[in-house]
Parts: sequence; C-alpha cells; structure tokens
Amino acid sequence: MQIEIITIGDEILSGRTVDTNFAFLARALEAESVVVGWHTTVGDTAERIGDALSRALERAEAVVLTGGLGPTPDDLTRKAVATTLGRPLKLEERVLDEIRARIKRLGRKLPASVETQALIPVGAEVWPNALGTAPGLLIVHEGKPVILLPGVPYEMEALATEHVVPYLRKKSGRQVETFTLRTAGTFETLLQEKIGAVPQGWPGAVLAYLPSYFGVDLRVTVSGSDAKQVRSVAGRAYDQLKTLVAPVIYAEGATTMEDVVGEALLELKFRLAVAESCTGGLVAKRITDVPGASRYFERGFVTYSNGAKVELLGVEAGAIEAHGAVSEAVAAQMATGARRKAGVEVGIGVTGIAGPEGGSKEKPVGTVFVAVSSPRGEGGRKYQFVGTRNTIRERAAQAALDLARRHLRGLPLEPKL
Amino acid sequence: MQIEIITIGDEILSGRTVDTNFAFLARALEAESVVVGWHTTVGDTAERIGDALSRALERAEAVVLTGGLGPTPDDLTRKAVATTLGRPLKLEERVLDEIRARIKRLGRKLPASVETQALIPVGAEVWPNALGTAPGLLIVHEGKPVILLPGVPYEMEALATEHVVPYLRKKSGRQVETFTLRTAGTFETLLQEKIGAVPQGWPGAVLAYLPSYFGVDLRVTVSGSDAKQVRSVAGRAYDQLKTLVAPVIYAEGATTMEDVVGEALLELKFRLAVAESCTGGLVAKRITDVPGASRYFERGFVTYSNGAKVELLGVEAGAIEAHGAVSEAVAAQMATGARRKAGVEVGIGVTGIAGPEGGSKEKPVGTVFVAVSSPRGEGGRKYQFVGTRNTIRERAAQAALDLARRHLRGLPLEPKL
Repeated sequence: MQIEIITIGDEILSGRTVDTNFAFLARALEAESVVVGWHTTVGDTAERIGDALSRALERAEAVVLTGGLGPTPDDLTRKAVATTLGRPLKLEERVLDEIRARIKRLGRKLPASVETQALIPVGAEVWPNALGTAPGLLIVHEGKPVILLPGVPYEMEALATEHVVPYLRKKSGRQVETFTLRTAGTFETLLQEKIGAVPQGWPGAVLAYLPSYFGVDLRVTVSGSDAKQVRSVAGRAYDQLKTLVAPVIYAEGATTMEDVVGEALLELKFRLAVAESCTGGLVAKRITDVPGASRYFERGFVTYSNGAKVELLGVEAGAIEAHGAVSEAVAAQMATGARRKAGVEVGIGVTGIAGPEGGSKEKPVGTVFVAVSSPRGEGGRKYQFVGTRNTIRERAAQAALDLARRHLRGLPLEPKL
Repeated sequence: MQIEIITIGDEILSGRTVDTNFAFLARALEAESVVVGWHTTVGDTAERIGDALSRALERAEAVVLTGGLGPTPDDLTRKAVATTLGRPLKLEERVLDEIRARIKRLGRKLPASVETQALIPVGAEVWPNALGTAPGLLIVHEGKPVILLPGVPYEMEALATEHVVPYLRKKSGRQVETFTLRTAGTFETLLQEKIGAVPQGWPGAVLAYLPSYFGVDLRVTVSGSDAKQVRSVAGRAYDQLKTLVAPVIYAEGATTMEDVVGEALLELKFRLAVAESCTGGLVAKRITDVPGASRYFERGFVTYSNGAKVELLGVEAGAIEAHGAVSEAVAAQMATGARRKAGVEVGIGVTGIAGPEGGSKEKPVGTVFVAVSSPRGEGGRKYQFVGTRNTIRERAAQAALDLARRHLRGLPLEPKL
C-alpha cells in the first residue's frame, strides 16, 4: 500500500521547525509495510491544502494530513478538506461536549474559538484525542481513506499509534512481521561488515540500519501474502541476526537503555546513585524517564564545580590536581563517592569535556570517562566522542548507562563484535 | 517569489534520514526574499521525479531539486529532468575533464560510472562543485529556473550559498523582514484573543503561532517589493506585538530560556544551584546545555528520595510528613537548601508528580511546585500541567527556569496578559 503524507504549516515550510511528525509516521507505517510514496508540505493556505489533497487522491491509496486543526484563524485544514471533498462542516455535539468537558476538567478559560474544533466534515469518523482538543478524523472518500491529525507532535503520535497504524495495517491486507534489535557501542559500518550479505537469504525481508545518538537499531521487516512464510522468514532472520551481533545488543523493540538498566537493578535488588559532571544531569534525567524509577533510583549529584565533587562525593582534591577533573581516577572516585554518600549499592560517575571550549591536545573535546562501583566490583572506561556539545553529552549519557548495564550483567565492558 | 523544493530519495521518504537540505535551503532563501511555497519529497523513481517536476512547474516560479545526481543506478534525477523538459542528455567534455582531474587529484579509484555525471541536459548552465563530482545545474525552462543540486549536504550547502541564493535573490526582487518573539507561561488561545485582529493592520505580514513544550513562539514575516515599506511594517509590527504580549515574552529569535537565565545570573554575578525531584535532572541538564554554564552553575541535587531531600538539602522530615514531598513548603525548603548547601546566591527547588502513577484527588498527576531563593527574597508557584510524563517534566523544567528568570529580573511570578 502506497500512501501520501501532507504536512501543513508555514513554520515547517520556512525550514525553522523540523517536521518530526512526518518521520514518526513514515517509520511507524514502514514497520507495517505501508509505504510512504509521496510527501508534500504546504503552508497555511486553504487553497493549497485543498490542491495538495486533490493531487494526493489522484496517486496515493490513502492520504494522511497533519497540522492545521487548531482553533486559530491560520488553522485551515478542516475547511480545506471539507471544500475539496464536498463534505460540509457540521457541528458534532459529542465532540463539542468532550471539548467542553476537557476545558472544565482543566479549570482553564479558553475562548469560544476552541469550539470550532467540533466542526467535522459530514461522514467523518472521530478518533478521540486524549491529549488535546482537536480529534483525529477519518473520512473514507470514494473508497480512499483521508486521515486528519493534529500537528502537535505528542497528540499526533498518540493518535497515530492508537488509530492510524492499526487502521492502515488492516486496510493494506499484507502480512507483516517486524522486529528491532538495538545495539550500542559500535558503528554502522562495522555492523554492515559483520552482517554482510546474510539478509539476502531472507525472502521478502528488508534490513534497515537506523543510527542515532543511542547506537544503531537494526530493524527487519518481512512482508508477503502468506502469513506462515512471513513468520518463518522472520523467525530465521531474528535468530541469525541476534547471533551475529550478540555482543552489542542491549534491547529489543522500543525498550530503552534506561529501561534495561532499571530491570537489572530491580532483579539484583540494588539501588542507584549517579554523579555527573559533563552530562549535567542528563544521566539522572534518562534514568527517571522511566515511570516508577523511584523503586531503584535514590539520588543524583550534578557536581559541575570541583568544589562540589570534593564536598558532595568525597573526591580527593589531590586526585583532581594530579590527574585533572576529567580523568579515570576522578570518575572512579565519583562513582564510589555517589554510592557511599547515598548509602546505596551502585554508583555511576561521569566526567568529560563536552565542548566547544575546554579541550587540550591530551584531552580533546569529546574525551569522557565513565566509572561504576557496586558489590560486583569497580569498572571504568575512557571514550572519545565526536560531534557537537549536545551530541557528545547524549552519547556520554548512553555510554554511561550501557557501562552500568554491562557491569551489572557481568558482561565485558568493551564489547567486541 | 514563491518556489518549490523537491527532495529526491527513498531514505528521506522512509523517515530514516532527516532532510536537512530542505531546512537549510528554506532558511537561506527566506532570508533573501524567496519563499518556499511547496515542498515535495519523492523516491528514487524517474517517473515520480518527472511528475513532481511537472506539477511544480505549473505552480511555482522556480524549482530546486536536491538528490539523485550521483553515479549509481538509483540516481535518476538527471534522466527524469531531461525527459520531462524534453532536453536530451549530452556528454559535456568540460565537465568530464573536471571529473577526471578531480579523481586524479584525489588519487582515488572510482568506477567508470562516475563519468555519467558529465551527462548534462541540453542548454543547462553548469555550476562547478568544488567538493564532489556532481555539478549543480541551472536550466531556464520556458522562463522558469529549474535548479538541480546534489544531495550530499555539504556539497549542496556550498552550491546553494555560492550560486543558488545569489541567483534567486537577483531573480526575485522581493524584500523580506522577519522576527520571532518567544513567550512562556500562557496558551496559544489566550495570545490569539489578546492579539486579535491587530495583524490586519500590517500589510504584507503573516503572524504564525508556534507552540511547543517551551511555550508559544510568535513569528512575523513581512514581504513586499518595496524595501522601505517592508522595513517600516516590520518595525511597527514588532513594536505593537511586543507591547501587546510584553508580560509573557522571555526571549527573541532563537535565544532559549536557559540562555536568558544564564545572562541574568552573569549580570547579577550570582551563582546557581538546583534541587530537583520530579524533573530528575532535567533542569540542571537544560542549564548546562549552554556552553560556559560553569561560570554560574555550581551544582545540582537530584533528590528523588525523601531521604536525599533531608540529608542533602536539609529539608525538614516534619515538613514532608505534614505537607507531603510534593508541596509548596518542601519546594521552598529545597530551594533554600540548595542555595545554602552549595554556598551560592540562587537556589531553585522543583517537586511534583510527573505520573503516570502517584496522583491523588488533591494533587493530580501534573501538580508541580517550584520555588526560588536568592538575595532578592523567596518566591514560589504551583502549576498544573497536562500531558504525558515526558511532557509534564519538560513543561515543569521550562516553568522552573522561567520562574527563576522572573524572580531574578524582579518581574511578577504569575504573568497576566
């Protein structure tokens, strides 16, 4: 099934806002063998929105529009779609009631214009939006689904996951199996070298390398008309791929590094404290992204100054003087200090140079030391990252979590593919 | 002048590669009076590239295509453009010589297929590519410029800066002025009510409301043929808009909340410590996103457990018992504790319920208390956020930084529009 995505918004066309909705949708749908054949972006103009929809309907099997469903005068999608499809807008009492109930629940004063969001093209199915006032809409027009989603990313993502993906999956009629193996601590080129031509033995399968701050995800999508054959190929691909890259896999599917670190801590009945310098709180933030992290996360120290390292963690001033604040010795003392001062089983220490200033010949920008301390012993590693300040900090946080995971699971701290 | 940009590539359509070329071009051109009216992405299929070009020529005043100029069989742009415009490809000896000289200079072995890049549609002007083998091409077809650029970002950016932008600037003759006012602590609907029909008095101007976690950005773009008139309208729009929404503006342009908090601290020669519970390190992370934050950020305490709040910050166990860890009293004690224990001038305390668990009738998920303490006194506020765990944490961090900014600048802690 080939669909078209239409993104609506002047802010996207001007290049100032990155269109994360498009990438989210394309990736979620590709995993279901729904292929995005065309992507069009138009500004907040009813005529152009209508024109883009007409053209999309000529060539695509389904059309998804995102954006322009808000209550302000530059939100024109509803009107443009109504005109183009010849389906007048009608006030939907049920939607209006939901909007009013939502406003009441929040105790907010919202202007009457919010109620324009209850104007729905005749014949549209309403997909309730639990996170905002503009519902998702499905119109099956001359046999083709036309789907309208709000542009606010978290509202769009929730509606896409709950409604759009399952609906289009069913509509496409293809059998699809997909899985993702998440790797950290290696490079795309090394993975490619290791995996080589093996995927050629998986009929109907596509292997995608998806690199990010967090590592490289390997996503396999197998599709075909025969469910049994698709399942069998997917099973074989899973076994082969998992064996090939086992040393660098940290999770599967959408499971995150902070999820698996949390699982390891819960299993071992260990609690965690972290001490951070260059990551400035990002490791603690990642850990506490997980609901219920309070079961194992006790506290974090963001020791940005040397004084804080000494006072809060008991790092020796002499160690900072002898080796520098960015050193293996200081990282190790931060880890043991965090663990002892918090009175918990596991401590992580991170210190490094995120840049753009502060690098030297011996310790260029991107030099990061991570250490971990627990009843299992002490461990540590030096890393050399490249990229911007933001990239280096994100990579350092991921590396710190991965090092803790490896330490807790008794795995080698430096994986070899 | 309204142009269309066509991005070519399966990797972009799948959502796996972010189209940085489009954003670069759109921003560079907008600054030079050239507006992107449409953006289309198609895959590596000659027919779809040709179709996209035909449609673009119907509506846009110029078309820029990026990608698909390489030497591999899936690079089909040259062929598709030649067919669509009825201008057969011809081997251009001068381009061939340049490609051969380049390969020789690099001492690299490249396949003979590289020479297909010297096949140029008849009548095209060649813009040499100093960083790669595929030159940029300009074809003026029935009076409309059609520009072909390689997809490799640094090659595209160099050609855009050297050739595309100056060429289209000259061609367009339009003048554009743009500015952005960033607001926090209010809602899009309230801003819209306040601003009302005022922008109708700005000829040639468009006001965009851009909401995100961080608040609502107001971006005004004014364009016209008369530079003096455009400047005058932009000046008036800036003054009027700034006056209308003054109480909620925290920055202009691309300046962030963490930037302005840092500026305030530097001006006042104050140093900062933060104590966080529900945000789990995110406030410290935001502060340290700014290069050079070590000049004013001393340390952060991520006091996730009650024990950590008592031990590290001196929060009274009795206050936690009497009011709960999520309370005005505890936020205030966290702020003063952070300030005192770090021995700095400013302390911020944040405590709340990020969810999805932990809410109650009196304190539902999204309840957050922020407090600040400094030589200017003590201040605090209660917030009620909605959304996912992630949204609530992001909003709480932004609110905490905004509260600190307001406190440091002597502004009311609860803005009234």
